Amino acid sequence: MSTRPLFVVAGIGGGSGTGAAAARLFAQKGYRVALVARNADHLKRLAGEINDAGGEAAAFPVEDYSYGATLSVFDDIAAHKWSSAGSSSLRVALWNAGTGVFKPFLEVTDKDIETSLQTNVTAAFAFSRGAVLAFKQNELDERGKRGTLLFTGATAAIRGNVTTSAFAAGKFGLRALSQSLAKEFGKENIHVTHAIIDGAILTDRSSSRGEAWINNADVRLDANSIAKSYLYLVEQDRSAWTWELDLRPAHEKW
Amino acid sequence: MSTRPLFVVAGIGGGSGTGAAAARLFAQKGYRVALVARNADHLKRLAGEINDAGGEAAAFPVEDYSYGATLSVFDDIAAHKWSSAGSSSLRVALWNAGTGVFKPFLEVTDKDIETSLQTNVTAAFAFSRGAVLAFKQNELDERGKRGTLLFTGATAAIRGNVTTSAFAAGKFGLRALSQSLAKEFGKENIHVTHAIIDGAILTDRSSSRGEAWINNADVRLDANSIAKSYLYLVEQDRSAWTWELDLRPAHEKW
Amino acid sequence: MSTRPLFVVAGIGGGSGTGAAAARLFAQKGYRVALVARNADHLKRLAGEINDAGGEAAAFPVEDYSYGATLSVFDDIAAHKWSSAGSSSLRVALWNAGTGVFKPFLEVTDKDIETSLQTNVTAAFAFSRGAVLAFKQNELDERGKRGTLLFTGATAAIRGNVTTSAFAAGKFGLRALSQSLAKEFGKENIHVTHAIIDGAILTDRSSSRGEAWINNADVRLDANSIAKSYLYLVEQDRSAWTWELDLRPAHEKW
Amino acid sequence: MSTRPLFVVAGIGGGSGTGAAAARLFAQKGYRVALVARNADHLKRLAGEINDAGGEAAAFPVEDYSYGATLSVFDDIAAHKWSSAGSSSLRVALWNAGTGVFKPFLEVTDKDIETSLQTNVTAAFAFSRGAVLAFKQNELDERGKRGTLLFTGATAAIRGNVTTSAFAAGKFGLRALSQSLAKEFGKENIHVTHAIIDGAILTDRSSSRGEAWINNADVRLDANSIAKSYLYLVEQDRSAWTWELDLRPAHEKW
Repeated sequence: MSTRPLFVVAGIGGGSGTGAAAARLFAQKGYRVALVARNADHLKRLAGEINDAGGEAAAFPVEDYSYGATLSVFDDIAAHKWSSAGSSSLRVALWNAGTGVFKPFLEVTDKDIETSLQTNVTAAFAFSRGAVLAFKQNELDERGKRGTLLFTGATAAIRGNVTTSAFAAGKFGLRALSQSLAKEFGKENIHVTHAIIDGAILTDRSSSRGEAWINNADVRLDANSIAKSYLYLVEQDRSAWTWELDLRPAHEKW
Repeated sequence: MSTRPLFVVAGIGGGSGTGAAAARLFAQKGYRVALVARNADHLKRLAGEINDAGGEAAAFPVEDYSYGATLSVFDDIAAHKWSSAGSSSLRVALWNAGTGVFKPFLEVTDKDIETSLQTNVTAAFAFSRGAVLAFKQNELDERGKRGTLLFTGATAAIRGNVTTSAFAAGKFGLRALSQSLAKEFGKENIHVTHAIIDGAILTDRSSSRGEAWINNADVRLDANSIAKSYLYLVEQDRSAWTWELDLRPAHEKW
Repeated sequence: MSTRPLFVVAGIGGGSGTGAAAARLFAQKGYRVALVARNADHLKRLAGEINDAGGEAAAFPVEDYSYGATLSVFDDIAAHKWSSAGSSSLRVALWNAGTGVFKPFLEVTDKDIETSLQTNVTAAFAFSRGAVLAFKQNELDERGKRGTLLFTGATAAIRGNVTTSAFAAGKFGLRALSQSLAKEFGKENIHVTHAIIDGAILTDRSSSRGEAWINNADVRLDANSIAKSYLYLVEQDRSAWTWELDLRPAHEKW
Repeated sequence: MSTRPLFVVAGIGGGSGTGAAAARLFAQKGYRVALVARNADHLKRLAGEINDAGGEAAAFPVEDYSYGATLSVFDDIAAHKWSSAGSSSLRVALWNAGTGVFKPFLEVTDKDIETSLQTNVTAAFAFSRGAVLAFKQNELDERGKRGTLLFTGATAAIRGNVTTSAFAAGKFGLRALSQSLAKEFGKENIHVTHAIIDGAILTDRSSSRGEAWINNADVRLDANSIAKSYLYLVEQDRSAWTWELDLRPAHEKW
């Protein structure tokens, strides 16, 4: 009985952003897809869509991004009975969750800070732990990897700014985690990588910016293009791994 | 009745490190000194030493570096009756607290992460809030400042490494906060600055490294020299402010 | 009569490194390949190899990497009669030339500095000018690009070190150029990107490190893997362009 | 017969910028001052001003910032007969020269690139060589230093932008040099440091921006304040050296 590669993603938003696009793409590439998020309806809808399209997806709602809840998802995934035959081997984990907080500093509350640190950093530690522990059980694949751990970063991961104190603190922290893990686990053939998304992504929500913006591919990121970058990173062989790349629209001012 | 400048420092360790050295130096320069830390004995001893030397210091123990406890220190300081006459004006705030956690990633516990984020980031947000709110009440001083907020950073603020995931996440987060604040409050003549301490500091604790190390000024940082840098940063006039500098011993390999 | 895409690469070393690997890969993908280097024998051999394999390559030797000689190559390329029918459209330009100088500072000569700056920076300006001027004549391709300009960078592009003063000065300068161009010409749908090669590449020359090193894919870069990254960058659509990524072997210490 | 400390500065502009301000300040602090620049009139005027004020300055015009001309200045300085008694010991060298080129990339000429690389990088290598060789002959001073080599950097040292390709290539290169030297010569107690001047400096030339700008100390750098930072860096003892700091006006947007 064969082993199927498994892709887990945390953070799928409303189903039109980076996490969802990556889920669809990895499903098409033959991965089983474990979807993790807080909103059970969004999860169910996306899983249904992927399954209808001939992929294999399952939803794993978390009550919150506490350390415990995030980590225990990996047990749920390991215990899941997939409809197709064969065991699963977690090969790709994408941390795409986190909460953006954009406020002048004096309006940032204790709660905002806690939320930013918990969802952007603490939960990412738990997610990383689950992924690394699973990867360590894998044999090397044909590219010399046990697994790939992907992190979605942002401009705020490398630059603090006037309304980003809480968000940047979380995103800087996440970047630190990703670099630490890349250095520690590269030696065990676990690939850890961090993408700096430097611009606005076209999603159901951002569509409120209007037709001109939606239709101008030069000014906004396409989630499917980000997903392709993630696939490319996963497919890098062990001789040439990327820790960090940036992604922005052609006409972005930076 | 005159107004005395006030210096507040959070994090004084055992009394032989950066926070304590800065407290002594600013006391010598005529600042009232508010000492904040968790260990009441250390606080009392340092306050006593400064007062005996002709300075004016008071101890403000905090039960922990929770957001609330850290923020409320500023009320305690405002309410404090100093022995000398005259009101106080908070002019310099030094965030020197935080907890170092150095472990392989898989040994890092939920508690370690929480501690690192709380002491390095959350509490720094509270401390910054207290400082900024106080500074905003000040007139410009002769150098065109309302106040200076200093952060003690570390190598781990700019580089994650194999045993620093939890510590680097906190120190990266702190650096993000400092940059965000520098950009937001420079416009209000509040100077925010971040020092990357890139090496080991000679303290009572690090003295266990032995005589050769202690006596070799080329290989370890002197807390008094760091304190002098902080004084220099405080004395920069408004036309030329530094956000970030690094400090390391002459022979440090980096 | 159709238009064939053209790939130009400067710097092919002995034929076993990054430039040559990229030439082979782009030839396989249907690009005409213009090979630029100083060593006419190496050029002829590689062009012959590509042509024998069913590709279409031509050699453009330069006497040196002076500004004038480097720039005039683009005229030579434009005037070249290719064996197959159809005109060419320059779509991808890879700057892979430059000279490494590794010496203690006091041993670095005036000539070393001149060579490093000329081959790493001045010639890259000329090459960029040739590429940008050619790209500006292109229509957008199906990915929304007029062309892609790739730069091979190195660890020394982001970190000076004890024996790299002359080399790092050149590689930092090249990185500055690439970032300036990326910002200036992104708006014209010209994609400029910079790869930080952070490790040793397996080539005929580096093979002297011995069998153990050669056979351990975890410790050295494979030029073909770097070439695949370049292809990936070229294939990024306009909504998600990378300016910079790093590439290193899985077990590299960094 | 005592030894007098010597300060050498290359690049004094019209006498109202950073180099001149540093010359005045170090003269006041008791240094003999060697002034290096291309404009002999500016040199003579500044030397005269410093001598009239009770300092001791001499002018060392260079025909150009070629490697040879720049390096040979150190012989001229060593051979100079100062009016006061006693030998000189070069203790501080400030590289403040370099040429700014700000043009869209396609307008940048071969000559512009050559000028930027020569004045910002090549000449800085020669200047560094002269300074390091002189420093190596010194005993440690009371702060544990043989000498301090200061570099004036710019925003363009860390960020390429749309009109800065040639200038940024030079300033990135200079920064690379400074970091390489800091790492190589720290071990020999030679302190190398790099200041990122991130904003416009008030000079005779920039005064054309008008009275409002001139009189608003929050929006432009004061050369005297930069000079004070340089003095502070020189006075850092060996336990806590800064390689890099940034300097900008309080209200600068960054």
